Formats: sequence, C-alpha cells, structure tokens
Amino acid sequence: MTAVEGSAGHIDTTALYVELQQFYGRHMRAMDEGRVADWTGDFTEDAVFRTNARPDPQTGRAAIADGAAVAARKLVEQGVLRRHCVSALEVGAGPDGTVVARTYAQLIRTPRDGASVLELFCTCEDVFVREEGRLRIRHRQVYRDDLPKD
Amino acid sequence: MTAVEGSAGHIDTTALYVELQQFYGRHMRAMDEGRVADWTGDFTEDAVFRTNARPDPQTGRAAIADGAAVAARKLVEQGVLRRHCVSALEVGAGPDGTVVARTYAQLIRTPRDGASVLELFCTCEDVFVREEGRLRIRHRQVYRDDLPKD
Amino acid sequence: MTAVEGSAGHIDTTALYVELQQFYGRHMRAMDEGRVADWTGDFTEDAVFRTNARPDPQTGRAAIADGAAVAARKLVEQGVLRRHCVSALEVGAGPDGTVVARTYAQLIRTPRDGASVLELFCTCEDVFVREEGRLRIRHRQVYRDDLPKD
Repeated sequence: MTAVEGSAGHIDTTALYVELQQFYGRHMRAMDEGRVADWTGDFTEDAVFRTNARPDPQTGRAAIADGAAVAARKLVEQGVLRRHCVSALEVGAGPDGTVVARTYAQLIRTPRDGASVLELFCTCEDVFVREEGRLRIRHRQVYRDDLPKD
Repeated sequence: MTAVEGSAGHIDTTALYVELQQFYGRHMRAMDEGRVADWTGDFTEDAVFRTNARPDPQTGRAAIADGAAVAARKLVEQGVLRRHCVSALEVGAGPDGTVVARTYAQLIRTPRDGASVLELFCTCEDVFVREEGRLRIRHRQVYRDDLPKD
Repeated sequence: MTAVEGSAGHIDTTALYVELQQFYGRHMRAMDEGRVADWTGDFTEDAVFRTNARPDPQTGRAAIADGAAVAARKLVEQGVLRRHCVSALEVGAGPDGTVVARTYAQLIRTPRDGASVLELFCTCEDVFVREEGRLRIRHRQVYRDDLPKD
C-alpha cells in the first residue's frame, strides 16, 4: 500500500479522501437503518467479505446480501438499534489502480428500553475499484478486537 | 435529499464537506466547553431545534440559547465533563439551496473523580443556510436511540 | 488561534484539513499497532509532549520514543489491544506559520478474551510545523477528562 500522505496537497487525493468519508457515512447509515439493498450495492458483483467472526468468507454480492438480510432481520426482531461509528480513515493506493481504505469502527448497540453500550470494536480494510464512476468494495477484511485474529 | 456522492470529485462538494467537518468540530467543542454564545451563534435567528428527548421544539435562537445555558450550568454544578464525538457525516442538498447534514454522536460523560462512560448515542439531521458566507443551522432534529422515536 | 472556517472554501484550507485527517489516521494506527518508530517519526526532533497523566513533560523525540516503547511493550505483555478513535478535528493557524489541530480521542481497550471497553477520553492540541514537506508535531498537550487538569 503506497501512502498518499506525501501528495495530500493534490486536489485529486483530497477529493478521494472526502469521497470515501461520504461513502462510509452513507454506507454505514444504510446498514444501520436496515436498508440492505442500498448497503449491498456498495459491493462489486464478485466481492469477497472476510471477518474473524466467521470461519468462511462470503463470496459474491448475493451471499453478502443474504448475510446482511439475516442480520438486519434479527436486529428488528430483537428491537435493537445498532450503529457503526467509523474513524481513523487512512487511504492509500493498492495494486492495479485499486484504492485501499483502512478504518476503525465502534459498534454501538441500543436495546429497546435500554441504554446505549459499546458492543464491539473492529478494524476494517476495504479494497475499492471504480465502476461507472462509483467506488465499490471488491474485498473487505474485518477484524473484531475481541476475537482471535486467525 | 439529493446525494452528492456522484459529484464528490468536484472541488465545491469536497470543500463543503470539509467546511462542515470543521463546523462540527468547532460547534461541538463550543458546547462541550460551555461557551454557549459561540454555540448558539451557529443557529439562525429563527432556528428550530427538535429532539425526542423533549415533547416540544425549541423555536428561535433565544430559546435555544436559554436551553443550552441551563444545560451548561447543570454540568458545571455537577462537575461533569460531556463530549460530543461526531461521526458518519453525510452531506446532501435540501430544497431551496439548503444543505442537509446527517451525523451520529456519541456523548461521553466524565464525572469529577470518575471514569468516562458512554452516556448516550443520537443521530442528528441539520438543515443549513448560508448567511453572510457562514453556514448556520435553520433546523435541527435529534433522535436519541435510547428513547422512543415519536 | 485564527479560525480557518471563514476560508474553508479555499483549496489550500480544504487540503490541509484532509491532510491532517490522513495524518491522524496513520499516526494513531501506528501507535495502536505498536509501530513506535513510525509513530515517533511524526514528532520534530525537539518536540514536547505534555499530558495531565504525567507530572513532567517529555522533551525531545528520543524521550517520547522511550515512553512510547515502554507503553507498547506493556500492552503486548498484557495482551491488550488499544485503539485511539479520533474525532472533532478543528484546524487553525498558530503563530509563526504553525498549524494548530485540536482533537478528541476515545481510547478503546480490549483485553485478551475480553470485551472492548471505553478506557478513557482525552482532548488533544497539537502544534505542527512543516519539515521537508511533511507535517510534524512540535508540541502536544493532552488532557484526560478523568484526571485533574492541573
């Protein structure tokens, strides 16, 4: 991953960083509000989603959508609100013109009639490609800090 | 709300997004440090502030300032520090040239001689207008996740 | 500290704000991953680091590096992951061409086989100078909210 810090003064790098901030605001809000199709549209057709919370990766947008729909339904049934608070965005260049974005996320969980609590913390590394002008995630790797990394 | 994501590569959109980040940094710090006048100056004269924590909206900058002064005094009396950690900024265009900004906020509370804790989580939607070059909030809607939405 | 908000529409200010966001993403990740040399390289040779968690300031990059190495080793020995979630960035101009950046940080701590918890909250004010094109911290003042300010 080539650091872009050295060229942060260039307009292109600045605009890309902000585009990704706007992306994550929209992306996480879509997930948190249960708008699964909006959220899933941010992945490429052949995207792979890996996390140390599951033994196997989800491969393909359809599989990612299925997983997200199950999770969203469970939250609705439990009457739980869940929010992803993203920070520490670091943007770099990956191979073949891809963009690599690393983030932190605090997940805040609020049960019906209960107080909001920190449910978990995770780090995330996304590899983006641009499709028809729009950034889409081709590969996502999430690590929850409270679970073994491997 | 028209998404600005498609035009995130334009300098104007990039600059507006960053201007709002700087705005929220200053705005929340003013509130958290008890500088009520600084904080209140970020609202238009006729601003309306609604939250699901109060049955009625606060209407007009003077009413918003009164409410903020009471809250600030209470924190000082209790010896409590309170911080608004804003994330998930999403910026869009509203009607009539307004700007709509959606954010998340974690409120961190630290009592005198005590540990810092997450007090609550809320979402916020602000409608901005520009007055003499400066963005001001004309309408704010806050929802605490731990209280009923309506 | 001169507010930069009024000129947020200028490319230079926008680019500087984003450069600092990228800086903090990289800087905090370096610390959180125990890459002490990477983290320490963000300070000037003569940097001063003050915090209300220590009676005396650390003076000079070498002293800062020593302190960071001790802290990093302790976390590894204890099997603890620690993350700095930065928010509320506010950028201004200091005297003599310096840049002043104010931030909030939530520290999230995850012990081996345990849940992630908010360990502490602090505010930070950094004074930056540019050396060979790169922003470096010349003075850092941190205040933990759970400790007396003076």
